[in-house]
Amino acid sequence: MKILLTVAYDGTAYCGWQRQINGVSVQQVLEEVLREVLAQPGLTVTGASRTDAGVHALGQRAAFSVPNGEPLKIPTVRLCRVLNGRLPGDIVCRAAAEMSDTFHPRFDAKKKTYRYRILNEEYNNPLLARTAWHVPRALDTDAMRRAADAFIGTHDFAAFCAAGGSAKTTTRTIYDLTLTPQDDGCLDLRVYGNGFLYNMVRIIAGTLMYVGVGKISPKEMPAIIEAGNRARAGITAPPHGLTLLEIEY
Amino acid sequence: MKILLTVAYDGTAYCGWQRQINGVSVQQVLEEVLREVLAQPGLTVTGASRTDAGVHALGQRAAFSVPNGEPLKIPTVRLCRVLNGRLPGDIVCRAAAEMSDTFHPRFDAKKKTYRYRILNEEYNNPLLARTAWHVPRALDTDAMRRAADAFIGTHDFAAFCAAGGSAKTTTRTIYDLTLTPQDDGCLDLRVYGNGFLYNMVRIIAGTLMYVGVGKISPKEMPAIIEAGNRARAGITAPPHGLTLLEIEY
Repeated sequence: MKILLTVAYDGTAYCGWQRQINGVSVQQVLEEVLREVLAQPGLTVTGASRTDAGVHALGQRAAFSVPNGEPLKIPTVRLCRVLNGRLPGDIVCRAAAEMSDTFHPRFDAKKKTYRYRILNEEYNNPLLARTAWHVPRALDTDAMRRAADAFIGTHDFAAFCAAGGSAKTTTRTIYDLTLTPQDDGCLDLRVYGNGFLYNMVRIIAGTLMYVGVGKISPKEMPAIIEAGNRARAGITAPPHGLTLLEIEY
Repeated sequence: MKILLTVAYDGTAYCGWQRQINGVSVQQVLEEVLREVLAQPGLTVTGASRTDAGVHALGQRAAFSVPNGEPLKIPTVRLCRVLNGRLPGDIVCRAAAEMSDTFHPRFDAKKKTYRYRILNEEYNNPLLARTAWHVPRALDTDAMRRAADAFIGTHDFAAFCAAGGSAKTTTRTIYDLTLTPQDDGCLDLRVYGNGFLYNMVRIIAGTLMYVGVGKISPKEMPAIIEAGNRARAGITAPPHGLTLLEIEY
C-alpha cells in the first residue's frame, strides 16, 4: 500500500521541494516528521512536482510506501491531524489517501494547475509580497490575454524550458490559460495542462509581462513558440509568484 | 507644513505600531528611515491608529512636521520611492501628501475601515497563515450575518472594549459591517465606523465566531451590546487576522 498526501506550503523558507545538501527542503521536513510519528526510520516520500526554492503549493502531492502487510501506525483518517501537530506552520498536510503499491505520484499525474500572481500596482503590498510578483509598470492586460491564447493546445514548448530539466520531450498540452484581475490588486495567471517543463510557468509569466509592457507583440507569440528558441521568449519570472494549485490523477 | 504618509505593513515581525522599549515597532523603523533621508534627527511621526503587535495595515496614516519655512529635503512626489528603497520589505509607504500645520492624523480621522479574516477550513492554509484566523469548526454564516446587523448604528460598545484603552467615551457609530466569503476560503469581516475602541474589532470578530459555532444566539446580540459587560461578549480574536484598511479625513 502507498499513502498519498496532499501538501500545502509557503516555500519562502525552503530550498525547494526536493532534498538538497545545502538548505532545508519541504521533502526533508515532511520525511522527518513522518519517520518519527510512523516509526519508519527508512521512510522516503516521492513528490509529484519538484517545486523550486521559493515556489509555493496548495496541492502538492507526495507518496510513501507502507511495509507489506503491516498496518499504518496511525489510521489514514487521523494522519493529517497528527502530522500538522508536528509540522512547522508553513507546511500543512491537507489530505491522506490509500493507494495501490503500483501508484506513482509523478508518473501517474494526468493534469496540473499552477497559478502565477502579478501585483500590478505602483508600490508593493507587504501582505502579498511573499506570493505575488510586484510589477509596477502599467500592463496592457488585453494584449496579455491575446498572447495567452497562443499557448493553448499541444505545442513544443522548448522556448519555455530552462536548462537542467530531465524531460525526454518538450511537447506539452495546455488546456487553459486565464488572466483574471483579483480584488486585492493582483492579476492571476492560471495555467492548466498535462505537464510542465522546468521553469515553464515562470517563463510564460515573464513572457506575458513582456507583452504587457509592449516588448513583445501578441501577434509574435505563435512564431516565438514555434521557433523553440529560449532567447526569443521573455524573462523567467521570480519563483515567489508561483503556486502549484492542483494535481489530478 | 505636515506630511501625511499612507503606510502598509505586515505586522508579523513588529511589537505593533507604537514605539516600545521591548521590541521593534513600525513607528521606530519608519522614523529612523525618515530621520536619515530627510536629515531631521529629531523627527517623530504620529500615527492615526495604534495597531497592536501582529496586526497588519494597508492604509495606516502617519504625519510628521516639516520645520517652519524650510523645504522638505526630498520633494513630496518622490518621497515614497525614496522611503521604499530604504524600508524593509514588510513596510511600504504608499502615498505622501502635504497638509496644514494644524492637521492631526488621529484627531482629524473621520472614518476607519478594518478587515478581519477568518479561514474556515479543516486545515490551515500556509499562504494565509499570517493574515487570517484559522477556525476549523463549521460556522453558521447566516447566523453570523444576523448577529452582525445588531452592531450597525450608534451604540455604547463598552462590552467590546479591552482594558487599557484611553477613550473618554465608549460610544461609537458603525456604519456598516459585512461578512463576505472569498475565493481563497476566507470569510472576510469588514467594519466601517467613525472610530474603534481598544481591541473592538477583534472582540466583535471573536463574538461573531461564537455566534457561528452556536455559543451565542443572534437574538442575544442587542442585549449583549446594551448590557455593556465584556464577559458576555465572545473572545478577543487573535491579532494576525486584523488589517487596518483605510482611514478617511
